[in-house]
Amino acid sequence: MSLLIVGSVALDTVKTPFGRHENILGGSAVHASVAASFFVPVNLVGVVGKDFSPAHITFLNQRGIDTQGLQIKEGKTFHWEGFYEFDLNQAHTLDTQLNVFAAFDPVIPDRYRSADFVFLANIDPDLQLKVLAQMQKPKMVLLDTMNFWIETKKAALLEVIKQVDVIVLNDAETRQLTGTPNLIAGAKALLAMGVKKVIIKKGEHGALLFEDGHYFAVPSFPLDKVVDPTGAGDSFAGSFIGYLAKTGDLSHNNLRKAIVIGSIVASYNVEDFSCDRMRTLTPKDIQHRFDELKKIVEFEATELERL
Amino acid sequence: MSLLIVGSVALDTVKTPFGRHENILGGSAVHASVAASFFVPVNLVGVVGKDFSPAHITFLNQRGIDTQGLQIKEGKTFHWEGFYEFDLNQAHTLDTQLNVFAAFDPVIPDRYRSADFVFLANIDPDLQLKVLAQMQKPKMVLLDTMNFWIETKKAALLEVIKQVDVIVLNDAETRQLTGTPNLIAGAKALLAMGVKKVIIKKGEHGALLFEDGHYFAVPSFPLDKVVDPTGAGDSFAGSFIGYLAKTGDLSHNNLRKAIVIGSIVASYNVEDFSCDRMRTLTPKDIQHRFDELKKIVEFEATELERL
Repeated sequence: MSLLIVGSVALDTVKTPFGRHENILGGSAVHASVAASFFVPVNLVGVVGKDFSPAHITFLNQRGIDTQGLQIKEGKTFHWEGFYEFDLNQAHTLDTQLNVFAAFDPVIPDRYRSADFVFLANIDPDLQLKVLAQMQKPKMVLLDTMNFWIETKKAALLEVIKQVDVIVLNDAETRQLTGTPNLIAGAKALLAMGVKKVIIKKGEHGALLFEDGHYFAVPSFPLDKVVDPTGAGDSFAGSFIGYLAKTGDLSHNNLRKAIVIGSIVASYNVEDFSCDRMRTLTPKDIQHRFDELKKIVEFEATELERL
Repeated sequence: MSLLIVGSVALDTVKTPFGRHENILGGSAVHASVAASFFVPVNLVGVVGKDFSPAHITFLNQRGIDTQGLQIKEGKTFHWEGFYEFDLNQAHTLDTQLNVFAAFDPVIPDRYRSADFVFLANIDPDLQLKVLAQMQKPKMVLLDTMNFWIETKKAALLEVIKQVDVIVLNDAETRQLTGTPNLIAGAKALLAMGVKKVIIKKGEHGALLFEDGHYFAVPSFPLDKVVDPTGAGDSFAGSFIGYLAKTGDLSHNNLRKAIVIGSIVASYNVEDFSCDRMRTLTPKDIQHRFDELKKIVEFEATELERL
């Protein structure tokens, strides 16, 4: 089934304990689209400046990502510069230059409007509403956001939440948006806001899925070295929705699989800067960690009363 | 098989968003012993003062906890006073009065010395070494500690680590003791210190088990209300080792079950102050959450290459 991803396209300068790289390919829509492209063709909507290398566009196209909806405007591409400390847990922003992204108008090309699956990656919730207004009748819309929009555009964000099927947030964003430190209570509060399914990403601690009457928790794939966490959440969300678009199956059991696949693809994405690890990743690699994670979480039934 | 638990016995004053309780039964050996008592009789070694209510001793005895090794000394019982903020994640200490605990000499009664299973709950590592020197040939020794001993008695602690089979730490302690922010790398560093199995408790994020060639991860049981987290780690460790002592089975698969049981018993312990929830807990309750957690983590196999 068809998949549309709308979000940021960026040139990032990232420093981690494992190196510093300037103006590397990044942005929520890029990480998500590349991750989704392991499962289905992707239609990408975003904006870049004239400085955006044609080689990046070629890379995206070669991965089955349609860039007709990628606007190329006069000026410079959105630029984020940040670093991670030794613990790699939190991104520290050094510089944000919106550039052409400041005036981004997410015009959805006609042939993208019938998309069955839509991922509203992290951008201004007003723009996310604008995207939704252009869509015909998607089977599933997935929403991501960030602390900045929760702080500055909460009303618009709450409106988007009402219009989507699934929200994906990290643990800090969940606490911030719902005002509760308890993630289980927070997920219930999000469901009460009108979204049907809630996914909480917890980085090294895995991910949680909540929908009415169902709860799923999966630990993260164990990595003793994380090179660059940038884009982990986007590649999680992109591969999650990409797998769902591939299978067209929105049953709870298939959502569980999609969450695991999201965790696995994200676990690869953090092994190198930008989406460089994705360039050599194969379905066999994804299968390998999927099977490993399945073994990691298994435990046998027991009958305590008969001990 | 026989189980010995050595640790602190305390009268705690605890404040959480759900109330404040003065001089309630607490301490690492108490929480651990009560949790273990769901599976096997327990021999407890600790020290209390003359102010320690006989009703507490009666409660312990009624749960199958032998208190011949509980020394009753002139003076007052170890007292900890603390509070938890709204997020319930971290205990803030207001007052610590060691009292009789300051001169604690863990003399192990003769008939306890042949214990098959030993839990060295959180006390001074020098005292833990003293306990080990009195034991005959335990099948398994489990070690707990805390940030204070990592800071002030690291050499003694490293010596204890070499002499035990399993160490149980929380995530912060793992990072502190190994100097690495990555828990997977930290667990490997702990194994390199000479311990055979490493368990990392992550509170709301579950628990991890590492042993040579094996890795297990389990999320915590979802609770939308935690009343008092005091003793969660001790009840985890106590029920973990209690279940192992009951079954006498140290296979990796049985360790996985024991970790899940530890998580489940801890999930009940935090539902009330002190170990009050344990007073009404039944094996059927433990079985219920065990089965629920098994469903929570399950996902189906899939063959990605055949999609």
